Order: sequence, then C-alpha cells, then structure tokens
Amino acid sequence: MPMNSKAAEQIPGIADILTAGSRISGAIRTTPVLSDPQFNARLGCELWLKCENLQRTGAFKFRGASNAIAVLDETGRPGDVATHSSGNHGAALALAASTHNRRSWIVMPENSVKTKVDAVRRNGGEIVFCPPSQQDRESGLAELVAKGCIPIPPYDHVDIICGQGTAVVELSEQCPGLDIILTPVGGGGLISGSAIAARALIANVSVIGAEPEGAADTALSLSQGKRVDQFPVNTIADGLRAIVGVLNFEIIRNTVDRVITVSESGIVDAMALVWQHFRMLIEPSSATVVAAIMESPEHFSGLRVGAIISGGNVDLESLPFKS
Amino acid sequence: MPMNSKAAEQIPGIADILTAGSRISGAIRTTPVLSDPQFNARLGCELWLKCENLQRTGAFKFRGASNAIAVLDETGRPGDVATHSSGNHGAALALAASTHNRRSWIVMPENSVKTKVDAVRRNGGEIVFCPPSQQDRESGLAELVAKGCIPIPPYDHVDIICGQGTAVVELSEQCPGLDIILTPVGGGGLISGSAIAARALIANVSVIGAEPEGAADTALSLSQGKRVDQFPVNTIADGLRAIVGVLNFEIIRNTVDRVITVSESGIVDAMALVWQHFRMLIEPSSATVVAAIMESPEHFSGLRVGAIISGGNVDLESLPFKS
Repeated sequence: MPMNSKAAEQIPGIADILTAGSRISGAIRTTPVLSDPQFNARLGCELWLKCENLQRTGAFKFRGASNAIAVLDETGRPGDVATHSSGNHGAALALAASTHNRRSWIVMPENSVKTKVDAVRRNGGEIVFCPPSQQDRESGLAELVAKGCIPIPPYDHVDIICGQGTAVVELSEQCPGLDIILTPVGGGGLISGSAIAARALIANVSVIGAEPEGAADTALSLSQGKRVDQFPVNTIADGLRAIVGVLNFEIIRNTVDRVITVSESGIVDAMALVWQHFRMLIEPSSATVVAAIMESPEHFSGLRVGAIISGGNVDLESLPFKS
Repeated sequence: MPMNSKAAEQIPGIADILTAGSRISGAIRTTPVLSDPQFNARLGCELWLKCENLQRTGAFKFRGASNAIAVLDETGRPGDVATHSSGNHGAALALAASTHNRRSWIVMPENSVKTKVDAVRRNGGEIVFCPPSQQDRESGLAELVAKGCIPIPPYDHVDIICGQGTAVVELSEQCPGLDIILTPVGGGGLISGSAIAARALIANVSVIGAEPEGAADTALSLSQGKRVDQFPVNTIADGLRAIVGVLNFEIIRNTVDRVITVSESGIVDAMALVWQHFRMLIEPSSATVVAAIMESPEHFSGLRVGAIISGGNVDLESLPFKS
C-alpha cells in the first residue's frame, strides 16, 4: 500500500520503545501474566493474559501517558496538558501529570462510564464534558489547546505509541516463544506499539488485532486500503469507540497480520469466562481478545498466544453478565 | 502457655512446607505481588499484596487442597475425598481431586455465596447442603466419612497447613525484607502455615492476623489462653466464620505476634479501596488485612508489610459497596 508520507516519517522503532521503557519503569507496574489450564483446554490454545487491567489507573494507558509527560519534562516544555478520552487515557494522563506536578484537562463524552469519570477526578484531572461524537471530542480539545494547553492525544502520537509498546517488551521477557501477540484495536495506540515491539523482539510472531463489529473501522480501513474517518459506532466496548489514528493506521497496515471482528455477545461471554477462570473483572474492550479466540479459533488452535488485557475499569453496577 | 500435647506432635516445620511447595508447584499459579504508591501514602506503610485472589479457584485454598490430595497419592490411599466448607476450600478440593482422578463430596452451609456454590460444581465437586452451623457442618462430613470418604478438613490438618504456608515462601522471594506478614484469620490454616514459613525465612519478621469482630474467636482464645469452641458468629466475611482449629491454635499461640480485630464497616471500606487502587474485587475475608492497617495503623506505620489477599470469590450481584 502507498504510505502516508508525513505519518511514515514519524513511525517509531524498537529503540524508541525500549527508551520509553527505561523512562517509565519507575512509574508503572510490571503487570503479571496469567494462564489457566482449564481455560486453555476450553479455548484450544495456550493463552497468556498480560494483565494491564492491573496496571496503575486500571489500564495500559498509563504507560503511554507517563512516557509522553516524561518527554515533555526532558525537552523542557512546561505547562498544563489536555486530551480527549472516553476515560482510561484521561485517568492515566491525570495521574502522570499530577506525578510530574502539571495540571491536566480531560475532554470526556457525556456517556463515559462512571468509574472512569471518578478515576479522572481522583487522579487530579479537570473534566470538560462533551457530546459523544469524535468531532465534539476533537473540538473540545482544540479549545483547550487554544488556551495554551499542550495536547497529549490518546493514541495518534509517537510518544503514546512508544509507551504502549512497552507492555509487549515485558511480555516477551515474561513469556518467551509466543506465536501470536493479540490486542484490542480502538484508536490503535496499543496495537501499533505492540506490533513494533513484537516484530523486533519475538521471532516469527504474528500480530493480530481484535475489534468489535460495532466499531470495525480499522478492519474496514484495511479492506479499503485507506483509513476511513467515519464509522457508525455501536458497541459495549466503550474503550474502542474511537476511529483509528493516522499514524496508528500506517503502522497497523504495515505490521499487523490480521484484524478479527467480534460480536457484542461474544464480548460479554468472554467477560464472564475471564471472571470464572481468573476472578478478574475486565472491561468489554479487553474481552475482545478472548472473544476473537472463541469466535475465530482457526487462527489460534494449538498456538501460544500472548493477549493484552487492556483494562479493568468497569461500572460494578451495570455489569453485562451475572456471576 | 501449656501445649496441647497431641497437637504439638503434629506441628510441621519449614522443611514440610518447602516439600509441599515442590509437590504442588506444577498445579498452582505463582501469584503476583502488587503495590501502589497512592495507596501506600494513604495507609502510611509500604503494603505488598500477595494476590491469592488470582490463584486457581480464586483463593489460597487450592494450595492446601492440592498438597493434601498429592500426599494421598504418594502414600497410596485411593478413594473419594470429602470436606465441609463455606466454599473456597470446597472448590479447591473439588479441582484438586478431579485433577487427580478422584471424586469429591463437599458439605456446604445453605447460606454459602452463589459464586462459591457454582465454583464447587464447575470444578467437579458433589455438594451436600447443611444448616449454617459448625455442628451441622461437622456432622454432615462425619456421615460422608462413615460411607468411606477420606476427610480432608479445611484447616485443621497438617497437609493443609503446609500447603497454605507455600504462599509466604513465594512472597519472601518475590518481596525480600518484609517487616510484617499479615493474613486473615478464620479456621487458621492460612495464618498457621504462613507463620511457620515467615519465622523460618524472614529475619526479624512479625506475624499479625486480622479477624472480624463478628468472628473474633481466635482473639478471644488468645486472651483466655485456651481455644474456645463456641462463638456467636456474625460477619460479612463469609470465609472466616469457622472456629479456629485445634492444631492451628497451637501454632498461632506460639508463633503469631498479634491478632487484630476489625469492624464490619472497615471490611467494606477496605474492599472499596482495593477496587479503587488495584481494580481487583477481593472478598470480605481478604479485606480484613487492609482494614487492620486502616483501623490500627500504629502497628504498621512506616513498615514494609506483606499481606495475603486470600480470595476473590464474591457474588457480583450483592457487592457491599458501589464503584
């Protein structure tokens, strides 16, 4: 495919991700990797869960946010930071900013889950609510930038991508010899960083994304050979409702082997199964990876799969399954 | 204090616990240890959570059950096994038994939480319900033993105690230099194994137990200098409603420094705080350790504390706090 030349110039390499790892190692948790023989027997593969739901702020997003803020410090840029986020990037940026003595302003859709709104506040972020559309999120952020805030976008940014990629650096050490790296796909920050790290560090690995049918803009973009910027989003996976980023899509189409779409009911079933087998509540976005294995087992059968469980920020009052 | 001589003869040593660790290492998960700087700042100590809520079957109980069943195999005793349990030991024994091709029979109080009942069934155990009293639990088990089942009691048994002690062996390696080992106290299986391991492996460590006021039979037994066998139990911590075992009490009074009682509201507050800071749902029994630090901070201030989070088997439909 032809490259978007501006984006192509910014694509980071493994050295950038390893530098990010050193930069944030004192701030983040090295998250555990869990497996379960009964669950593996049911899935027909050897699945290792990289538990970013147990990361600080309850999601991998704290890796990218910590890296982006640390880079601002290193390059001598003082000032408040701002972003738009359905929640996990917002809470992560709020904590990273307050740790570095900066204020943060978070544009959040009005339908964000309560747990995520509370987390932004608890971590010291100032919230600006907006209608739940991509345009409103971006215009809300533009207003804050016009007032002097430094924008730290949630995924379409090289420092964010490098930070997110550090989860796979850890995973490749914790669990050698993986055949597949499997991550959710939303804006594409996690999968693009993961893919760069995986290609560099794991021999003969395949990189697979999992995307809800109701937010399958990346699968559509791949099939059309160019990034779509509109999609009628309707999914329970609140963390994956964003449109894939420009830089992210350039990386995805050059380094990701496949994006599998999953059903809404598959996402809910996967949440329930992870609760049964691991006693972890994972958010619907995270459950897409397990749903992908259940709904498309032919891509995983008999293989050693490392899946990023991206977050655990759910509203306990509105879980879509029963214990 | 004078020793109960029969019990004293059976008290295991660190060699027995290390042997148990080797015996069960292929079956159990090495559970992660997590800490959080914001949470530590709030608590006034450096707290490390040993996450047995993420153990197979969702509780440390799988360690003891796996060890007890493996010992039966080693000593050539075939046959079905049986126990009484409010749930976690039952599910653990069911899975350990089915892994070793044995049937298991579990006497459960009628008021056991649904998640735990389901877990026993899912792991292949046969359930016999009984009224929720210690006497009814024990007579239910006696009937099964009369029919030929091998009893595997939930805590008052040397192989169970040795299996439970393996969590502290792991913790001492994962997190060197702890000042305090802190565990919940119910029947006493966890704290007795933990205390033996801690005394042998960690220099100058204190061992502290946390017990709900509504099931404070161990604290009462310690203050009276002998084990009480009756207590008006009334606590949300469903895993800690049993009376401390005979062998367990002998170990506790000789090796545990202190048992702190905690309030019911403190237990609920602690569950909510662990959810906020770690995105883990822990059961009320586990939350007693965090409640002990919050309600009696003078014993922990500035120290490095390793706490066993004993289990994560909660009914999602009846959580005692909001997200």
